[in-house]
Amino acid sequence: MLEVYGHGGDLETASLRYGIAPGEFIDFSANINPLGPPPGLLDRLRDALPGVVSYPDPGHRTLTLLLAKKNNVDKETIVIGNGAAENMALALLALSPKVVGIVEPCFSEYATLSKQFGAEVRSVFGTEERAFKAEPADVERLIGESDLVFIGQPNNPNGVQYGLDELRLFAEAGERHKTYVVLDEAFVDFIPDTNRQSLLSELERYRYLILIRSMTKFYAIPGLRLGYAMAHPQLAAMMRDKQVTWSVNLLALIAGEYCLSASEEYEAATIALVAQQREFLRDRLSRLGCMTWPSEGNFLLVRLPQGWSAKGMQEALGRRGILVRSCAMYPGLSDRDIRIAVKGNDDNCKLLTEMERVVGGVL
Amino acid sequence: MLEVYGHGGDLETASLRYGIAPGEFIDFSANINPLGPPPGLLDRLRDALPGVVSYPDPGHRTLTLLLAKKNNVDKETIVIGNGAAENMALALLALSPKVVGIVEPCFSEYATLSKQFGAEVRSVFGTEERAFKAEPADVERLIGESDLVFIGQPNNPNGVQYGLDELRLFAEAGERHKTYVVLDEAFVDFIPDTNRQSLLSELERYRYLILIRSMTKFYAIPGLRLGYAMAHPQLAAMMRDKQVTWSVNLLALIAGEYCLSASEEYEAATIALVAQQREFLRDRLSRLGCMTWPSEGNFLLVRLPQGWSAKGMQEALGRRGILVRSCAMYPGLSDRDIRIAVKGNDDNCKLLTEMERVVGGVL
Repeated sequence: MLEVYGHGGDLETASLRYGIAPGEFIDFSANINPLGPPPGLLDRLRDALPGVVSYPDPGHRTLTLLLAKKNNVDKETIVIGNGAAENMALALLALSPKVVGIVEPCFSEYATLSKQFGAEVRSVFGTEERAFKAEPADVERLIGESDLVFIGQPNNPNGVQYGLDELRLFAEAGERHKTYVVLDEAFVDFIPDTNRQSLLSELERYRYLILIRSMTKFYAIPGLRLGYAMAHPQLAAMMRDKQVTWSVNLLALIAGEYCLSASEEYEAATIALVAQQREFLRDRLSRLGCMTWPSEGNFLLVRLPQGWSAKGMQEALGRRGILVRSCAMYPGLSDRDIRIAVKGNDDNCKLLTEMERVVGGVL
Repeated sequence: MLEVYGHGGDLETASLRYGIAPGEFIDFSANINPLGPPPGLLDRLRDALPGVVSYPDPGHRTLTLLLAKKNNVDKETIVIGNGAAENMALALLALSPKVVGIVEPCFSEYATLSKQFGAEVRSVFGTEERAFKAEPADVERLIGESDLVFIGQPNNPNGVQYGLDELRLFAEAGERHKTYVVLDEAFVDFIPDTNRQSLLSELERYRYLILIRSMTKFYAIPGLRLGYAMAHPQLAAMMRDKQVTWSVNLLALIAGEYCLSASEEYEAATIALVAQQREFLRDRLSRLGCMTWPSEGNFLLVRLPQGWSAKGMQEALGRRGILVRSCAMYPGLSDRDIRIAVKGNDDNCKLLTEMERVVGGVL
């Protein structure tokens, strides 16, 4: 399989495997905005390039203020990270949980990072019937048994959200048990405002709650690395205390500043495109005999027809220059499961055509 | 003082303090190659910008191979980091030293990171007579008392190297006491080959030795963040195990690959310019009543004339658009000590002219 480093989007490995240049693949294995970066961002970065002869601002001051304003929170609540993954690591380093709870299936870094920094990992599982969302009572029990719990909101790889009532139940259980509840909102920006379930506006009520966001997926800049966390100022300060100086590079900071001024049209167009193409893909995939579940993210969990394996499909598509994410290694999923990003119509149609050929045996 | 985050090169703070745009300063407070990046690097990065829509290679495979070749070591010995500072952090996270030894005065991150990750810090001191180089016997004793020791080679802020015999003494004491000896070679590339004292070619003899190098100083790309460590494969693997996935961004990797093919002329010209301008500065500074010590780095430790303080000089120069690094907070140094980078002749002359005016009271 391609996930030798545990993740999708590994163009190097795919290139070595299939003999196709990294830039030539249509990559459904990483969940990146199909519209690409906001208009003008690459120009802004080009102009900023000569500035790499200087250090980045170790205090991330400008971007911190902009993020505080955008999210209507105090600037002391913000921790800017070298990708959302660094924010997760900072939480673990700052809080030294002995037991970390996770809700499978989920982003593999929750368990990887937790073990990396010495924690024991306990899991509860979502069920197929609930689109792999866990029972709230199970999550609540997990919170009681853990020192820190990671919850994807929406969750990767299935794209489901918990409702506000469920989130409050989790956050309150966190306060009661003194368990840190980390809500990973890496993909929350892809959900329309009207349907976005987030405790952001209630952040100050909780001392054990951490929200983590990514700026690399929605703004299509995973190569630059940029994420942030929001938490009670004391908690945020503990996380910042574990951060290595200059951890966030200069171009990531500049990109972040630029992206926050991205036009409303770009944001609205992204959300509309993803919603529309996601349903298009679900419809067409079901005609191919695949099962999918309702997702609110820019990705879909897909169960391949009987007789097909994630490995076989990944391999067959890979040779044709199309990358999908195998989900065979996700606890709680099966070896017929893959995850695909929702891309633009042209790319999606190419995927469907090739999958149809593969499933139809036209190899 | 300007070092609110503990370091020079903080253009944001200087800009807020003096009302001058960050890009307008002549910055002697960060030790960056005065020739700037290798010819063609910015063009290469400009061409690479559209690639930021993809993740960086989590295995850093191409740059690892190039670094292994350049340094004539096995690729398993290499750990590529998000700046040399990350490599220091990875060593601390991987090895969990209870006691970290440092040789003052030195780069402040040795102590900062050690405390950040829970270690106790013990120091020995260099003496003024030895250009702030410590007695080898003191360092050896420190190694015996510590679990990990950081040694700058050449050391920042004074620019002195230990000789090969001394380095071997330290590395062997490390093996004997099972103490990790971290030689910080961040500035070693500025020293001519013929005079460079490094255990690189003897690396495989030692299981407790770590060499750390920066690519941001010599190649003038501190904004991008890039460094690496070299150590016994087992030790290197332990460090990599603590690294957050995608910690090194795509443009840093591409820049690193490009810089390793930088022309010999660029490298030779850098080394020659720095050596020549360093002596020019020493000569002129002594005429101004300043004391300096022999340095082999691209920076000089300067003791201001009686009656002057680092703070006062930094402030007076800062208002004139010139930044120098106060060394008043370095244990073992005095409040008359500053550090200046060695820059090109024009900039160096501007610094000297302004210092002369300041010292002469022409404010």
